[in-house]
Amino acid sequence: MYSLTVRDHMMIAHSFRGEIFGPAQKLHGATYVVDVTFERPELDSDDLIVDIGLASATLKQVIEAFNMQNLDDIEAFRGRNTTTEFMARQVFDAMAEAIRKGRLGKTGNGLTAMKVTLGESHIAWASYHGALHHGTR
Amino acid sequence: MYSLTVRDHMMIAHSFRGEIFGPAQKLHGATYVVDVTFERPELDSDDLIVDIGLASATLKQVIEAFNMQNLDDIEAFRGRNTTTEFMARQVFDAMAEAIRKGRLGKTGNGLTAMKVTLGESHIAWASYHGALHHGTR
Amino acid sequence: MYSLTVRDHMMIAHSFRGEIFGPAQKLHGATYVVDVTFERPELDSDDLIVDIGLASATLKQVIEAFNMQNLDDIEAFRGRNTTTEFMARQVFDAMAEAIRKGRLGKTGNGLTAMKVTLGESHIAWASYHGALHHGTR
Amino acid sequence: MYSLTVRDHMMIAHSFRGEIFGPAQKLHGATYVVDVTFERPELDSDDLIVDIGLASATLKQVIEAFNMQNLDDIEAFRGRNTTTEFMARQVFDAMAEAIRKGRLGKTGNGLTAMKVTLGESHIAWASYHGALHHGTR
Amino acid sequence: MYSLTVRDHMMIAHSFRGEIFGPAQKLHGATYVVDVTFERPELDSDDLIVDIGLASATLKQVIEAFNMQNLDDIEAFRGRNTTTEFMARQVFDAMAEAIRKGRLGKTGNGLTAMKVTLGESHIAWASYHGALHHGTR
Amino acid sequence: MYSLTVRDHMMIAHSFRGEIFGPAQKLHGATYVVDVTFERPELDSDDLIVDIGLASATLKQVIEAFNMQNLDDIEAFRGRNTTTEFMARQVFDAMAEAIRKGRLGKTGNGLTAMKVTLGESHIAWASYHGALHHGTR
Repeated sequence: MYSLTVRDHMMIAHSFRGEIFGPAQKLHGATYVVDVTFERPELDSDDLIVDIGLASATLKQVIEAFNMQNLDDIEAFRGRNTTTEFMARQVFDAMAEAIRKGRLGKTGNGLTAMKVTLGESHIAWASYHGALHHGTR
Repeated sequence: MYSLTVRDHMMIAHSFRGEIFGPAQKLHGATYVVDVTFERPELDSDDLIVDIGLASATLKQVIEAFNMQNLDDIEAFRGRNTTTEFMARQVFDAMAEAIRKGRLGKTGNGLTAMKVTLGESHIAWASYHGALHHGTR
Repeated sequence: MYSLTVRDHMMIAHSFRGEIFGPAQKLHGATYVVDVTFERPELDSDDLIVDIGLASATLKQVIEAFNMQNLDDIEAFRGRNTTTEFMARQVFDAMAEAIRKGRLGKTGNGLTAMKVTLGESHIAWASYHGALHHGTR
Repeated sequence: MYSLTVRDHMMIAHSFRGEIFGPAQKLHGATYVVDVTFERPELDSDDLIVDIGLASATLKQVIEAFNMQNLDDIEAFRGRNTTTEFMARQVFDAMAEAIRKGRLGKTGNGLTAMKVTLGESHIAWASYHGALHHGTR
Repeated sequence: MYSLTVRDHMMIAHSFRGEIFGPAQKLHGATYVVDVTFERPELDSDDLIVDIGLASATLKQVIEAFNMQNLDDIEAFRGRNTTTEFMARQVFDAMAEAIRKGRLGKTGNGLTAMKVTLGESHIAWASYHGALHHGTR
Repeated sequence: MYSLTVRDHMMIAHSFRGEIFGPAQKLHGATYVVDVTFERPELDSDDLIVDIGLASATLKQVIEAFNMQNLDDIEAFRGRNTTTEFMARQVFDAMAEAIRKGRLGKTGNGLTAMKVTLGESHIAWASYHGALHHGTR
């Protein structure tokens, strides 16, 4: 299995609900260093997993929806805690949607799985790893 | 699959037995940067993999058994070589036991696998990855 | 010249004022990885720059004033932009004050300079480096 | 499952063919930080995954075939693009061959899988992960 | 003294002349992770060392002159060895020229020194550190 | 000012004397990631600060005196605490001696200062920075 990872980052504010979060129930923030790993069993005819320039540009577009935002204000996240692991899944879903829409070009069609890791500090990070399903477009 | 990693470290002395170890047969030491990765297929009702504060505190307790020790003096390791890979397994087993004892709270019950990585330098690290079995308590 | 650095981190929300900040004028946040470097020309009688445990504990206390906060709500920062470089100076001043108060023990009296670096992402960080003045206490 | 990783690096020149590569069609170069991860289900009788000294030395020998080379001049790569992911596979195949030839000693026979990761920068890296097949020697 | 660093990278091919370089006399290449540190004694009226967006964009423009190039083909480097330390100086001079031309805005005028570090691998990097002279424009 | 850094590591055991050290008074150990930075105001005629291969090889020889040792057994350290900062100075002195003996070749004569940093973990490191004096040989 081949895999390729590109890295970017986003800076967000948010607060959590639930006693388990302690002081993190207050409005605070985080820099998330975002690593997206693309997997495929064989290289394409250019000897690529995915076009790295296109992958980086698409990741940047995807995280623009979250970067420099207060996540508490995003309607789709109402009633959820925007934890690092939760946000890893949001980036995964948004990247998967972008791939289905063809934003990684035809090379994107060969990808079979993806992993998104969000680093919140030098001592903690969280990931979501899942298969990619390519529908009929 | 979701995963969350927390990092800590421990500083130990030890020596190895066997010609294959060369100069490492002498008493020397290591800093192990310890990464513990917790896995679960779905987030809990707080949108968490595990309470990160509880996970970090439990890891610190677990490695207190090894930190600032000469591993050659630990009875349970008699006759074994306390290599980086061997110690990764020891931390894994001790964390798994702590989880079974409920030290990560009820969120800990949802964890299905764990990976422990011990970094011994900027050019070498070792891991143990295994399933978590939750017995009847 | 000898120097010793300890690392911790803090997670904050804030917003900036001024056209130059573009989208960062909105409420967002950051993880700051905080490195504090202590300098002294000679080691003390224990062969130390500073007690590393005391230094780490003092740093943690100092950044508690900022960690998990919305910096926009801190009265002392009213009218200022809490940029990474500005916050590096705040941590410097608070650590310097803690040293003057003797929080690093008598070893702290031998320190002549300090540097505080705040890492805001994998591609940007800022520092403040200055002398330490030990008044009569 | 146990795994152990050793790190080295190589510095190469190359060019790519195909419009998708843009400016990378010109002769340029890269430093690849090379991580090789060895996997086995149980430790050997010395409590090792693999002899770390032997693993590091073998990796260095393997990458000597590529280090300080213009990959465009290597006959075996004629007609291929020597992308990061392609080169990860080349290092994998060469290491697998070295293991089959017994270069990691008898401990090498217990390895069941291997992963090679090539870091091309602080924001991009690629891997090849595969099983190791031990033939009759 | 305040300082702020931004990071980017460039990928180049080159060869060296002189017996001291051994196998590096052959055409090979490198990824340089480029860190540029801007220094100034006091923050500007926006509480900034320099506009981080402008600094990053300017750095990217500056290294475009070298990125994806064979440095052996650059006329200005004829007769020189484009070592890591030599290239650190080239990036320094080009950034200093960009600052003199006002590319960092008026905030750039307050900068008093700059340091450029080029990381060639995980085990070696080189820097050039110098004062910035602001002429009459 | 130009500077070039090379990295290696050493693994040692030791114990400390003095109440201030708490549990570190027991025999334990550390991995020290060793960074040696060489400084000189101008490049030599090969466009080098120092021959990087020679610098790396000399560093490896220098730290062989400490690597895989119990520092408590080294006669020269009797009565001292082999703290990270103390050991940074020991590596500095040994490298400075090697340079005076010509082990870095004639390029070594142009070096004016050196800094040695020992990383003891992901959250703590210590340095010694000093001038290099080239006697008459």
